Amino acid sequence: MTSSPLEIIAAQLDTDMEAVNATILSRLESSVPTIPEVARHLIAAGGKRIRPLMTLATTAIYGGDMPRAHRLSAAVEFIHSATLLHDDVVDESDERRGKTTANLVYGNQTAVLVGDFLFARSFQLMTEDKSIEILRILSNAAAIIAEGEVMQLALKGQMTMTMDNYIQIISAKTAALFAAATEVAPVIAGAGAEHQHAMHEYGMNLGIAFQIADDALDYNGGAEKLGKAVGDDFREGKLTAPILFALENATGNERAFWQRTLANNQQTEGDLSTAQNILTRHNALHKATQMAYIYGDKAKACMKQAPDHPLKKQMVDLVDYTIKRNT
Amino acid sequence: MTSSPLEIIAAQLDTDMEAVNATILSRLESSVPTIPEVARHLIAAGGKRIRPLMTLATTAIYGGDMPRAHRLSAAVEFIHSATLLHDDVVDESDERRGKTTANLVYGNQTAVLVGDFLFARSFQLMTEDKSIEILRILSNAAAIIAEGEVMQLALKGQMTMTMDNYIQIISAKTAALFAAATEVAPVIAGAGAEHQHAMHEYGMNLGIAFQIADDALDYNGGAEKLGKAVGDDFREGKLTAPILFALENATGNERAFWQRTLANNQQTEGDLSTAQNILTRHNALHKATQMAYIYGDKAKACMKQAPDHPLKKQMVDLVDYTIKRNT
Repeated sequence: MTSSPLEIIAAQLDTDMEAVNATILSRLESSVPTIPEVARHLIAAGGKRIRPLMTLATTAIYGGDMPRAHRLSAAVEFIHSATLLHDDVVDESDERRGKTTANLVYGNQTAVLVGDFLFARSFQLMTEDKSIEILRILSNAAAIIAEGEVMQLALKGQMTMTMDNYIQIISAKTAALFAAATEVAPVIAGAGAEHQHAMHEYGMNLGIAFQIADDALDYNGGAEKLGKAVGDDFREGKLTAPILFALENATGNERAFWQRTLANNQQTEGDLSTAQNILTRHNALHKATQMAYIYGDKAKACMKQAPDHPLKKQMVDLVDYTIKRNT
Repeated sequence: MTSSPLEIIAAQLDTDMEAVNATILSRLESSVPTIPEVARHLIAAGGKRIRPLMTLATTAIYGGDMPRAHRLSAAVEFIHSATLLHDDVVDESDERRGKTTANLVYGNQTAVLVGDFLFARSFQLMTEDKSIEILRILSNAAAIIAEGEVMQLALKGQMTMTMDNYIQIISAKTAALFAAATEVAPVIAGAGAEHQHAMHEYGMNLGIAFQIADDALDYNGGAEKLGKAVGDDFREGKLTAPILFALENATGNERAFWQRTLANNQQTEGDLSTAQNILTRHNALHKATQMAYIYGDKAKACMKQAPDHPLKKQMVDLVDYTIKRNT
């Protein structure tokens, strides 16, 4: 069995990932026992730790100081975890990574407050790093993520939403943190503005590709094997890339269907399967995947600007792997 | 009519407060229109802006750079506003400062996300200030606030809660931000560790006194004139200072009453007025106020260590005023 690029990167950086995990666990500690309990429910549950790995791998490629990357990787994962906790409250989710969500187990109130704690902790970690430029990158990302989430909520079920709106939302809510995670590496290494820009664009385009692929997966019957629920976005009335492609040439009946199910949020038994049939009729999942590859190609081109390093090829290969795994 | 210390401080710093308000309004801007709308609902609604005023006044006393204080005052107010938005979600409040709360008008989801945005914005503002020490002070405060809120939630309705627990909670959820707001001033002015410690302790003790007085006010019929609802803490099952004093020598019947109303959260018509009668019987509001004055005296002693300045007396007088206004 061949290993995936993610597995190869993780294997090569295993002592670094151990250091990141140790930092995460030690910084979850608090005199208030609910906090590590809730945070562990989410963070220790695993997940791919893809964002910390990206910070570690790009820092290694640029020859930056790895202990700084450990701390900043933990900060990135804390921001990510805080947004997951708040997302689950916002989306009223009941499952994540095959586990009951923290908001259901501990209540929305605790989920909101522990999210705030993780967010504050991430800024404490960044402050310990002492680089104002890195604080600027990550605090900007945090503000942009929140803007993207609010925009997504405001446009939920809005049939006037455009593909531009969609790309703007996912650039903010998902890709901004990927971009920040890889942009910090050339800053740690002092590699200069051009490399900083290239790594920002790598993470941004990879993040956009990742989210488009993830949104296609939400309508793909094969998703269950990855521990994902199918139809979450549909139930929440989110107009994601597949829907937007299907709307381009929608018949009157189809438009009425999307209007009822997504805009008016009136769904009955069998609607998800009708939605999947309409998407198939318009080749919408394929079109979404093709769009993901366009962003993916941009990401690959950016990574090619990085210095030579054994991990560089893996970070290029990671792009297509991320899309394939999700679609 | 004599002016209050707060009014005198605000009048002397009116051009500075204008600069802070301008910073707040300009930094609320976002390409996502929901964000300034929700934030203005809360921030433009007014409130006393006591935290920004404290940063401005202490910076003026220490002769620090006022434009830095403007930016950091706005950052402090953003942290405060973010916690208010999340608090109202957590407490399921429907009114604040005599206005319907943002969570009721815009939904809990939007309130959570706009709170996240304000929190991120505050870190962007701090990063622009470029002082790692100030970032350390404020990110620590943010983490401590979240810990205090989680602890309060975990101990809600717990009859085993002690006065030490209570002081720990209010030190964290309320006083830590006051402490940070005044601690930054000697840092801006480069006044040294001793002054930093004194101003931290001033804000901390003032904040504790403020919260105890505020908690006493929650059972005081005169509160309505200040636009506050009476009995919020009672309805939410919070064991605040007055209750803890009343529990010290409670009869069996009284203990059963608190157990039913606060721990079991079974309240009926007339319970609030019974609660007020029990508190009166134990002189509990008076005892709470006396405790507030003990912390207030500590705050005054700390301010006396600051350099001579026309505003110094006002910052001393502010302490008793804060307690009297609230009780």
